[in-house]
Amino acid sequence: MTFHSKLNYNSVMNEDSKTELTIRQHRGARRRAKTRADLLAAARKVFAKKGYHDASILDITEAADVGVGTFYLHFADKDEAFNTLIDEVFHILEEQVITEVRSHEAITLTVTVHSIFRHAYAQRDLFSIALASGAQVSRTIRVEDTIAGGLIRVFEQVPQPEDLQGYDIQLLARLVTGVIAQGIIWWFDQDEPGPEEMANNVLALLAHGLPASLFTHNN
Amino acid sequence: MTFHSKLNYNSVMNEDSKTELTIRQHRGARRRAKTRADLLAAARKVFAKKGYHDASILDITEAADVGVGTFYLHFADKDEAFNTLIDEVFHILEEQVITEVRSHEAITLTVTVHSIFRHAYAQRDLFSIALASGAQVSRTIRVEDTIAGGLIRVFEQVPQPEDLQGYDIQLLARLVTGVIAQGIIWWFDQDEPGPEEMANNVLALLAHGLPASLFTHNN
Repeated sequence: MTFHSKLNYNSVMNEDSKTELTIRQHRGARRRAKTRADLLAAARKVFAKKGYHDASILDITEAADVGVGTFYLHFADKDEAFNTLIDEVFHILEEQVITEVRSHEAITLTVTVHSIFRHAYAQRDLFSIALASGAQVSRTIRVEDTIAGGLIRVFEQVPQPEDLQGYDIQLLARLVTGVIAQGIIWWFDQDEPGPEEMANNVLALLAHGLPASLFTHNN
Repeated sequence: MTFHSKLNYNSVMNEDSKTELTIRQHRGARRRAKTRADLLAAARKVFAKKGYHDASILDITEAADVGVGTFYLHFADKDEAFNTLIDEVFHILEEQVITEVRSHEAITLTVTVHSIFRHAYAQRDLFSIALASGAQVSRTIRVEDTIAGGLIRVFEQVPQPEDLQGYDIQLLARLVTGVIAQGIIWWFDQDEPGPEEMANNVLALLAHGLPASLFTHNN
């Protein structure tokens, strides 16, 4: 019993100190994550206000109410902070669209296109900043890959699969992605039409195509 | 008469020496332009063979059979040579498409899309190099602006203008540009389908749209 008690005692002590250590580690990690999130939120505000080139790390740390040194614990430079911001926003966007589309009984192109435009419109300030920062084509293509991947899933769930027989699904997803991407690029310069009307325009083109007279002139 | 003769004589002499100077200037300009074109052609070969990052200015001048110093008379660095190459190829592409489309009796979307894909396919090696070089989104958007501008002219020449009533022509041109751009981006990774089949795929989507069952599930 004594032996066991001692063992238990020791073991409990170990557990306790381990737990305390873990709690302390978790607390540290949480604090670190919170600072990082604060820095990214501040960066977003500063980039939106000053533009990519004029925004400084000092602006960002002042807006986040931390010291300049803290910035460098999280990011190598302004460029890395901005790229992280873009990647995180895009990831959130992706999650939002997936969650929203899945909440519908039937996953249609209509639901998907509306959801993409709605969430992308809310983040459109970031796109123009990304463009001004000298964003690379390879990044856009990665985003388009994600959209195309989502569209492939929509195509694969079409209730009458024979409807898509003869189509190259991969290529079709890419071409449709192009239409959606251009709808988003449209917002680089202007705010109108808003997301619902944009989605309706895109869906009308994708559902019905263009007037026949554009393809062959019978004159 | 003497006065006039003298005037004429002087004037002729002036014209002659001016002409000789002009000829010499033209010869110099021609030689300069020839060297520049040789350097760009060499750069294209070197970039295609070694990739953007591994290509050196020495590789380019050796392939063009000129000294390294000559390179710097024309371009500040490798990046400038590459950007010039891309801009010139794109300009040639644009001219080729415009000439070809105008040679047709009726300027239709069918003719335009086939022409764009045919000429873009011939230059597709450059696109992947541009991508690897870290090409910026702003450049792609400039290219897309040009395609959209061409499409707007096609839309404006539709024989039954009432067919496009209710459409926002600017937005429509953008959305269609997206489909064409994705067809070209497809060739970054793969060579198939070739330009005619790609054009047919794009035109089928633009003419007829996608199956109705993708938009609303009736189950």
